[in-house]
Amino acid sequence: MEPTLIYDTTLRDGTQGENINFSAAEKLKIAKRLDELGIQYIEGGWPGSNPRDMAFFDMARGESFENGKLTAFGATRKPNSQCHEDKNLIALLEAETPAVAIFGKSWMLHVEEIMENSPEENLAMIRESVQYLNAKGREVIYDAEHFFDGFKDDPDYAVRTLEAAIEGKAEYLVLCDTNGGSLPFEIESIMQSVRNRLAEHQGVAPDDLSLKFGIHTHNDCGLAVANAVSAVRAGAVLVQGTVNGYGERCGNADLTSIIPILCTKMSSACITSANLAKLKNLSRFVSETANMTPMNSRPFVGRSAFAHKGGIHVNAIMKMPVAYEHIRPETVGNIRRVLVSDLSGKSNVEYKARELGVVLGANGYDSRKIVDEIKTLEEKGYQFDAADGSLKILLEKFTEQFKPLFELEAFRVTIEKDKDRPCTAHATMKIAVGDNHEITAAEGQGPVSALDNALRKALGSFFPDLDTMRLVDFKVRVIDGRKGTEALVRVLIESRDQDEIWSTIGVSEDIIEASWQALADSFQYKLAKESRQKHGEKKCRAV
Amino acid sequence: MEPTLIYDTTLRDGTQGENINFSAAEKLKIAKRLDELGIQYIEGGWPGSNPRDMAFFDMARGESFENGKLTAFGATRKPNSQCHEDKNLIALLEAETPAVAIFGKSWMLHVEEIMENSPEENLAMIRESVQYLNAKGREVIYDAEHFFDGFKDDPDYAVRTLEAAIEGKAEYLVLCDTNGGSLPFEIESIMQSVRNRLAEHQGVAPDDLSLKFGIHTHNDCGLAVANAVSAVRAGAVLVQGTVNGYGERCGNADLTSIIPILCTKMSSACITSANLAKLKNLSRFVSETANMTPMNSRPFVGRSAFAHKGGIHVNAIMKMPVAYEHIRPETVGNIRRVLVSDLSGKSNVEYKARELGVVLGANGYDSRKIVDEIKTLEEKGYQFDAADGSLKILLEKFTEQFKPLFELEAFRVTIEKDKDRPCTAHATMKIAVGDNHEITAAEGQGPVSALDNALRKALGSFFPDLDTMRLVDFKVRVIDGRKGTEALVRVLIESRDQDEIWSTIGVSEDIIEASWQALADSFQYKLAKESRQKHGEKKCRAV
Repeated sequence: MEPTLIYDTTLRDGTQGENINFSAAEKLKIAKRLDELGIQYIEGGWPGSNPRDMAFFDMARGESFENGKLTAFGATRKPNSQCHEDKNLIALLEAETPAVAIFGKSWMLHVEEIMENSPEENLAMIRESVQYLNAKGREVIYDAEHFFDGFKDDPDYAVRTLEAAIEGKAEYLVLCDTNGGSLPFEIESIMQSVRNRLAEHQGVAPDDLSLKFGIHTHNDCGLAVANAVSAVRAGAVLVQGTVNGYGERCGNADLTSIIPILCTKMSSACITSANLAKLKNLSRFVSETANMTPMNSRPFVGRSAFAHKGGIHVNAIMKMPVAYEHIRPETVGNIRRVLVSDLSGKSNVEYKARELGVVLGANGYDSRKIVDEIKTLEEKGYQFDAADGSLKILLEKFTEQFKPLFELEAFRVTIEKDKDRPCTAHATMKIAVGDNHEITAAEGQGPVSALDNALRKALGSFFPDLDTMRLVDFKVRVIDGRKGTEALVRVLIESRDQDEIWSTIGVSEDIIEASWQALADSFQYKLAKESRQKHGEKKCRAV
Repeated sequence: MEPTLIYDTTLRDGTQGENINFSAAEKLKIAKRLDELGIQYIEGGWPGSNPRDMAFFDMARGESFENGKLTAFGATRKPNSQCHEDKNLIALLEAETPAVAIFGKSWMLHVEEIMENSPEENLAMIRESVQYLNAKGREVIYDAEHFFDGFKDDPDYAVRTLEAAIEGKAEYLVLCDTNGGSLPFEIESIMQSVRNRLAEHQGVAPDDLSLKFGIHTHNDCGLAVANAVSAVRAGAVLVQGTVNGYGERCGNADLTSIIPILCTKMSSACITSANLAKLKNLSRFVSETANMTPMNSRPFVGRSAFAHKGGIHVNAIMKMPVAYEHIRPETVGNIRRVLVSDLSGKSNVEYKARELGVVLGANGYDSRKIVDEIKTLEEKGYQFDAADGSLKILLEKFTEQFKPLFELEAFRVTIEKDKDRPCTAHATMKIAVGDNHEITAAEGQGPVSALDNALRKALGSFFPDLDTMRLVDFKVRVIDGRKGTEALVRVLIESRDQDEIWSTIGVSEDIIEASWQALADSFQYKLAKESRQKHGEKKCRAV
């Protein structure tokens, strides 16, 4: 089978999903990740519709993309007007992307009842808009909105809208199941009918049609992935979808399912197998960026996708994973989890300790015991797969190798608010470094920033190298918010210096306590590293 | 088309899902709800495998079911043994259900490699077990585990296992895609091949075969619903699945999608339309009982399933809902929602204002101007599609209809930490209610909880009805965390009382300021509601 091309619309149609919002900078980060994965088309937004999407294309102009063609999205020109005067088309061109996608109306109900337009003018809008963008040197992807509903209602007219796009020289005709109400066998049979009708009009055999079809499906029946797969079977060569299936209502077709299905089950390798193994990380990255809780049961990439609970199943997969696994989890960068056994945990901890340079077992605290401790902490809300820095400190604590380079004596943070004026925050802090004590005070943008500033100031007199360290990311997640303001809170902090990035974690019902844990771990990690390096340097000089 | 029968396995296969656990009493409540909905088969558990399932069948024995046949699940007898001595089969009979389901092996890999059994003995186990249960007066459903994988590996043997079940007089032959790796067109073509082979062996035409097939699918490719639908197209008359698709790994086929698809799109009314309208409530009931957060984007029954965000979409559905809705939401007991965000236009705001009971335009602040203000606020990090409560207050402020029921004079929150001891937090707060002032102090689990407690205490003397209000969810999102602890923070709070749930939002670089905004809005919303209700009551009395 021909490789199918993937057209990602996470950054445009994905953001129609409830609670899915990205800043322009976040969009750019996601676009770069999609490019790294080898996605062929990356739809960045609708430049004519909002300032954020405009800002994204401005920022993207300075970036280079290796694999993906950046694509701007918009509508056909307005009724009874000229393309070169159409604000939306002008904004599309100003985005300066190699490809543009425009949508037009295929369903008479929309043309006549919603748009109050004439069928002929609608055809002219499609033909002229495609032609105009094409003449400006853009590759034009034509999205036939509501195509399947339109075809069910009036097949002749729906096909005529496609012919208008063909006359305008669209590169792809993307058939959209906009309302998500179609069934897989309908998709397949309608696509067949469309090919037959177009072939008949062109006076060629259906197999000789030199048209490229795409498919865009929605998940209102839980069938978006199946409908995309059916369309590929019926000849579609371009599949539109979003990472994690984000999108309006029930979402779009989930590329984290479609890509591995095409690659591993339909011999249509849309991306390389090396890139396929990055799929789980991409899914996680996009959900973190959207601050959506990753869905554990998400096919292929979810945390539970290869998790086995039933006793019979666990017994069988220990003999042969294929007994209860349809593909190897590593294919998509995922891992097998056994929910009733900690056997897999032991080797993980040993592997991780080696990676972090911690020697286990010296004090009788072996990997089995550590697995149990970690499981208990994870039960309480910790999550060490995202916090290597804290994991290293934890392993050192278990094995009595942890040497704190400072100790907290006490802190006090005060936040005050007066009527409508914004809050002010300040912190006082007392720490001990060896036998020396230091007490400082600092202000901040909020309590955590005040603590950060106070700690930095207190440590500064002992460790001048701290200047190179910056906090670069700060994430807060409420774990099970149903207890309201008494819920457990998880704070993740990412820090960096000139040569490394590390992450630390804190968990507490008190957001300040959780932030402090993560903050303290981050500084301890940095100071331990400085101390090792100095120690190493001295040794070098002594030699 | 013939009505398809629904076989629910939420209480058995559903509980293989990570974090899905029901007590026997909870199982009984769910079974009764399934019965009320008109589900034809209700699988209650595996009596031979654990004490809880045994307890369930003991409890269920005293109950009557109107529509659903209660079904017990188990395995075929063990190799080289007698049915009447088999503990598992005995437990199945002791459950005293009208129907029993037993699973057998279809895949040579499982027979030979995992079970270390002979192919002939496996056939005997199937035939004899079905026969034995049948002779005891049970309706026997035979689940052919791994049927599709088995057929792909060795079609002859897979079909022979079905023939063993036919010889034992099974009522239904349920073909299982146990590992969830099959594609819809494979399901359809394999089912066709199976019919052809069985017909040939029996010397009849495929259409004259008097066998009843069922289908059991898993969602490892995101195709469980599609695979079930394909099987129905290929002649299956019984569909197995779970409510909300709960189940091992990526879950089972989701009945909350399959049932409405069959009823509204395949003219195979498995339940009445009156019962179909209870579907959303059933979904919610099962997720509440399982203590799982309901998935907003779940097809048909999710909170977002009929939620519209894009301005063009909202404009269209206000004219004709069919423009962007594949079925009427009421069909499945759901409702339409319009979201307000920076992707939306005038129509969203107008629709929303009507829904929230705010009259626009009185002071020249029309919907166009409000859209612009909202877009500006969303640029700053607000997100009103998830915060109806704050949106209502905002619309009232814009239109000068907001009457604050309390005003903050000042607060001070102090968080203290002493060495390794956990943080303590307390807040003092001064508020004004009309001309009265109140100053209070309170402790809390962290600063936000201390503020919540102090505000509640301060307001309590004026508004005793506040007791009915609880905060039920608390979400914190750091917007672009690259500024470290000085990043912008968005707080969302969900609150409820006896008859409503509402959400409020706050945004600031200071997490306490953001939390305060959301908290204050939540209390203002509740108090305004109480005040309207009291006012309404008074008017009623006056008439």
